[in-house]
Amino acid sequence: MITVSEALEHLFSLVTPLGTETVPLAQAVGRVMAEDATAVRTQPPFAGSAMDGYGVRADEVAVGAKFKIIGESAAGRGFDGFVGPGEAVRIFTGAPVPEGVDFVVIQEDVDRFVNTITIERDPGDNANIRPAGNDFAAGFTLTAPRTLSPNEVALLAAMNIPEVTVYRRPDIALISTGDELVMPGDTPGPDQIIVSNTFGLKALFDRAGAVTRILPIAKDDPASVETVFELAEGADLVITIGGASVGDYDIVGQVAQELGMQQSFYKVKMRPGKPLMAGRMGEALMIGLPGNPVSAMVCGNVFVLPVVDALQGLPPAARPRQSAPLAAAIPSNGPREHYMRGRVENGRMTVFERQDSSLLSVLAEANALVIRPPEDGARQTGDLVEYLPI
Amino acid sequence: MITVSEALEHLFSLVTPLGTETVPLAQAVGRVMAEDATAVRTQPPFAGSAMDGYGVRADEVAVGAKFKIIGESAAGRGFDGFVGPGEAVRIFTGAPVPEGVDFVVIQEDVDRFVNTITIERDPGDNANIRPAGNDFAAGFTLTAPRTLSPNEVALLAAMNIPEVTVYRRPDIALISTGDELVMPGDTPGPDQIIVSNTFGLKALFDRAGAVTRILPIAKDDPASVETVFELAEGADLVITIGGASVGDYDIVGQVAQELGMQQSFYKVKMRPGKPLMAGRMGEALMIGLPGNPVSAMVCGNVFVLPVVDALQGLPPAARPRQSAPLAAAIPSNGPREHYMRGRVENGRMTVFERQDSSLLSVLAEANALVIRPPEDGARQTGDLVEYLPI
Repeated sequence: MITVSEALEHLFSLVTPLGTETVPLAQAVGRVMAEDATAVRTQPPFAGSAMDGYGVRADEVAVGAKFKIIGESAAGRGFDGFVGPGEAVRIFTGAPVPEGVDFVVIQEDVDRFVNTITIERDPGDNANIRPAGNDFAAGFTLTAPRTLSPNEVALLAAMNIPEVTVYRRPDIALISTGDELVMPGDTPGPDQIIVSNTFGLKALFDRAGAVTRILPIAKDDPASVETVFELAEGADLVITIGGASVGDYDIVGQVAQELGMQQSFYKVKMRPGKPLMAGRMGEALMIGLPGNPVSAMVCGNVFVLPVVDALQGLPPAARPRQSAPLAAAIPSNGPREHYMRGRVENGRMTVFERQDSSLLSVLAEANALVIRPPEDGARQTGDLVEYLPI
Repeated sequence: MITVSEALEHLFSLVTPLGTETVPLAQAVGRVMAEDATAVRTQPPFAGSAMDGYGVRADEVAVGAKFKIIGESAAGRGFDGFVGPGEAVRIFTGAPVPEGVDFVVIQEDVDRFVNTITIERDPGDNANIRPAGNDFAAGFTLTAPRTLSPNEVALLAAMNIPEVTVYRRPDIALISTGDELVMPGDTPGPDQIIVSNTFGLKALFDRAGAVTRILPIAKDDPASVETVFELAEGADLVITIGGASVGDYDIVGQVAQELGMQQSFYKVKMRPGKPLMAGRMGEALMIGLPGNPVSAMVCGNVFVLPVVDALQGLPPAARPRQSAPLAAAIPSNGPREHYMRGRVENGRMTVFERQDSSLLSVLAEANALVIRPPEDGARQTGDLVEYLPI
């Protein structure tokens, strides 16, 4: 058995970033930018007023000073003339500062009578002028790769970038296997249960940028598994669920190898999720997740999300961990790295009592996987533990 | 001027949750569930094996004990007979435990010869059986409202819920105003800049469940503003950007009131974002955001996201704050609540030096708004500060 970080290294070695495509800026949030974006224009392109007020010469600013208003500079329509001594220009927030002006007295500090203003209150030292290039200069670059946030989308707009080159969304095919499984909405027989992993995993992967297809459930016979594998044609990542254990009916690996899958590894030293399999199958990457619902979701978070990131051109890396103090003590861990379901609330982590890998009701309450190293000793209330937000 | 929390209360008083619709489970992630979901079936519906092995009677388990294999229970195809003394059934993970069996010896602990097994190693006390209803019983309810996570989607699938009743996505119309603004991709005049807020805000609101439309930019004249307002027809929430300040050209509020907007408040005691306006306009809620790019994005996070949540039926509340220790000291705050741009990394918060509300390049580096109460004193390295993740 290999460790979780060894398994991740193996997975990353199988990943080639996907191709790129161009999307309109309005659809770019959450996508991974593939090429640096460079501003061709300085922002603001001119010195602009930071306030509504009157533009004057700084060396004339004093309480009691009077100025003649010779024009107006509004956002989008600046004042073209020169502002000389004793003169002022009415100016609005964001408007260009005219030549000759190097101070904006805010309107609350002046008294206006027809076309004359008098400074009534000390305007202080702040000139209320934003210099050209205050935000960024022409040539400013937002570097790739990065997953675009709403704030970065706003910045790209200000940089006058109407379209963005992004990595293609990974096409993921999800295959559940097992004679015991039926689809939600079906009427299960007495020995059957409802398939749940594909729905949870699709939600997880789509949120990370993938386009995930739920394929028909494969029966526990090689012909059925082969038929469903063929439906995965064109996928960048084929994910099977179940059939990666050691039982006589675990035939997925066998069929995949007959179809040309080159296995990279099998079994990881972790809880839950030991029977994890990965390899290349033609152009696609294949990952076999364990069939227990919680194990599948945990492995989806620990292994598949970093692969989805890497397929989209992000640097290969585990998702970042956070840490929080324990709300209650937890016992020592066994020989495998353990991803315990827990809930962080008000900055404190509660690790759930029931950790059986079949309990979706417990997983649904969790927002964190607490990571226990192998043979980690008992931990006390207040001890810091690392976790993966889920 | 009112406080941020007073402004939020005013906003919530204007919100009526939207109607509901039914979506397939595969499209339910991120949506707000509107009705409780109740399992009609117990999960697992039968006592099932937690391992691959052999099902026997617990009182016969001992090293050296021999059993005759009388059948097999696989997932989806259980064993119908009764297992008597000296008898065993081959059983796989997830398969129903036959009558008479109350212990599963894992296959690693037995030696099998044709149809006989001998227990070779002490199997311990764990019966490796998951009782019926181990995960949940029929009648188990996932309560509404809640924003569905991937884990909850998996749970709903296991509960055999193929469709979910969710609140409708809010239809948001975004209107930027200002003669100085042009669209990304256009060639701005010397006094013009590129509109950025609508793109950033659309990304922010869509991620929170809305369907956001970017309307044409309104010019700084009443007829243009009115024309664009009419394009917002049918929106649940109309958001204007700019024109809510005190300059002579700030005509949005004036036009909105002529169109029947009933103003709830105007100006909030905060930085950035003081000129915030809200009211009802027919069936729609209207919020006027300030025009400075960073102010607009900050107010989008602080005010609009909670409104988007409340429109989708979530309890009216500010987005939850987190806290982190400061990586460096920060000076005292003035009389207004200040939302400072910062970055939390490795659990420590760095507040950026440059806090001018025009700096999108700084906002793009931020992942947090550090919340400073009015007149908050200087804070030292290591002091805990509250923040809103962005």
